[in-house]
Amino acid sequence: MTPTLDWLAEPCPPIDQTAVQHALARQDQLTKPPGSLGRLEELAVRLAGLQRTATPEVDPVRVLLFAADHGVAAEGVSRYPQDVTKQMVRNIANGGAGVAVMAKAVGAGLDIIELGLATGSEVVEGVRSEPLGPGSGNIAREPAMTPEQLARALDIGRDAVDRAVDAGVRLIIGGELGIANTTAAAALASALLDRAASEVVGPGTGLDSAGVNRKAEVVARALALHASEPRAPLEMLRRLGGFEIAALTGAYLRAAQRGVAMLIDGFIVSSAALAAVRLQPAARDWMLFSHRSAEPGHRLMMEALEADPLLDLGFRLGEATGACAAVPLLRLACAVHRDMATFDEAGVSNAC
Amino acid sequence: MTPTLDWLAEPCPPIDQTAVQHALARQDQLTKPPGSLGRLEELAVRLAGLQRTATPEVDPVRVLLFAADHGVAAEGVSRYPQDVTKQMVRNIANGGAGVAVMAKAVGAGLDIIELGLATGSEVVEGVRSEPLGPGSGNIAREPAMTPEQLARALDIGRDAVDRAVDAGVRLIIGGELGIANTTAAAALASALLDRAASEVVGPGTGLDSAGVNRKAEVVARALALHASEPRAPLEMLRRLGGFEIAALTGAYLRAAQRGVAMLIDGFIVSSAALAAVRLQPAARDWMLFSHRSAEPGHRLMMEALEADPLLDLGFRLGEATGACAAVPLLRLACAVHRDMATFDEAGVSNAC
Repeated sequence: MTPTLDWLAEPCPPIDQTAVQHALARQDQLTKPPGSLGRLEELAVRLAGLQRTATPEVDPVRVLLFAADHGVAAEGVSRYPQDVTKQMVRNIANGGAGVAVMAKAVGAGLDIIELGLATGSEVVEGVRSEPLGPGSGNIAREPAMTPEQLARALDIGRDAVDRAVDAGVRLIIGGELGIANTTAAAALASALLDRAASEVVGPGTGLDSAGVNRKAEVVARALALHASEPRAPLEMLRRLGGFEIAALTGAYLRAAQRGVAMLIDGFIVSSAALAAVRLQPAARDWMLFSHRSAEPGHRLMMEALEADPLLDLGFRLGEATGACAAVPLLRLACAVHRDMATFDEAGVSNAC
Repeated sequence: MTPTLDWLAEPCPPIDQTAVQHALARQDQLTKPPGSLGRLEELAVRLAGLQRTATPEVDPVRVLLFAADHGVAAEGVSRYPQDVTKQMVRNIANGGAGVAVMAKAVGAGLDIIELGLATGSEVVEGVRSEPLGPGSGNIAREPAMTPEQLARALDIGRDAVDRAVDAGVRLIIGGELGIANTTAAAALASALLDRAASEVVGPGTGLDSAGVNRKAEVVARALALHASEPRAPLEMLRRLGGFEIAALTGAYLRAAQRGVAMLIDGFIVSSAALAAVRLQPAARDWMLFSHRSAEPGHRLMMEALEADPLLDLGFRLGEATGACAAVPLLRLACAVHRDMATFDEAGVSNAC
């Protein structure tokens, strides 16, 4: 049975403005000059409003890591062979990849979901395999997905969030893996933002300038091929995205519908976040932004999302590593909000 | 007996360039595109060189928090009454201040050292009291310290580092507290950088523009008063600094002499770091920079120290809060360096 897309229209709950006002008032009573903890204060107030509570908490945190192959890899847009997607899925499951080390180090759970590999799916302990095919279509020649594949990918993202929220998770992090997926993300972002390929395409995992030009040319070809089609976000996602990008879009939309905060990082996941917000603008309220990617198109997406990421550490790895790096800051924001003494409690004189 | 300043000239050990080269080579073998974890890679390599090891570690971390009053508070340069220094010393010891909450949250120890309060020292559990007087002199009218006070303050900073290093601490964080100490730090930074007061002075804990102008005028007066004196860094520190700024200078110099990494944050501690580097340029090698302060003079000091702080979260609280916020990033850098799999170990194909 083909899945229905009806759930995409379920509403996102509003932020609790009373909790926001109480949190703002508490911040001004804490023993520090008002505003002097900058973005930590802002984070605590945001989380209070999202969690409808005076004492927001970050834990449990879960990374939902979606992996899939991309037909557009055939266009020579990555420095790495396509086998690397499968190899890296194993490496994540074995704890050796960047996201595995960082999620463990910051105390985040990790749910690894594989949606289709070029060399076939395989049973790997700790990996949920939900193959939709041997990878998405080559967007320079055909749509990335059939309508059925798109609907299934969105559902897989939704279900991963439902599992997490049902288990009590308070912060959702989306992550991705897939050779050539910066190409798909660049194409999707270009279409959603109505920008030229050359403005959005960057070096990804490390292309030189000739490689970047070639990749921009491939993205431009994909955009031209699919340009005459309906400009609805869902159709752009189907034609230009990929399995894991569609799953992330479903996951982000679902987290907002479930009223759970999410932490967004790099270039690929941001294209999915942008698609989710184009589907439902209210989803934006539930997104926190963690890391500014070195990819040039990321800045354009952040501007469109009115987002100002917390960190700028020069990451360009993806996998959710930028979001993992920001988790301790969110915890600190909650600790400060909860545990700092007020001027009254501490017997400290307030400003003249 | 007046303490001797001879120890200030003891040499700082060199960075282990072999460990640096090994760490760089290891980073390029880890299963990620080279350089794709940006500043985390740079941190791991720096720490490997400083700790002369293939597996650098951050813990134990200790915050050395130096508190003192400043005679220049009489010039009306802060929004807070001078009593607040003593009240905040208690608040830190009781766990209610920003640095207390954040140090605890990031697993850093806290050594609180009080060097002189306007209303007299008092016994507070968890606070080491080493009063050098009821506060430093009013720099707009007189030197901040006598030669004896300067020497004692430097020694107190040195001794705090010696206690920490003898206890096995691997990362030293300096923190400060003292009403009006952004004025002293601005004066010291102006003198060390040979900049006009107006270029360095900022709102501190929250002055309005009239307040900033008044503060700049006070700093300009202090600079004019002491301008004819010898321009040696130690003499600038004595005339324009304060007890806690001198203790921090001694602490930073000692950490470098002992070969222990330190994490520097905001405006006041950076003036001490700059003084330490002017006393011994090799001390700079042992400094990591955590947070870009909102104070305008901080940028000038970072330029002079060729430092690019990790975080920019709009903090302007001091106390070491910016450094505490960066501790998890240093831990992550070490975890990634130690725990990520290499391409060979993981059976992942490297770039074409």
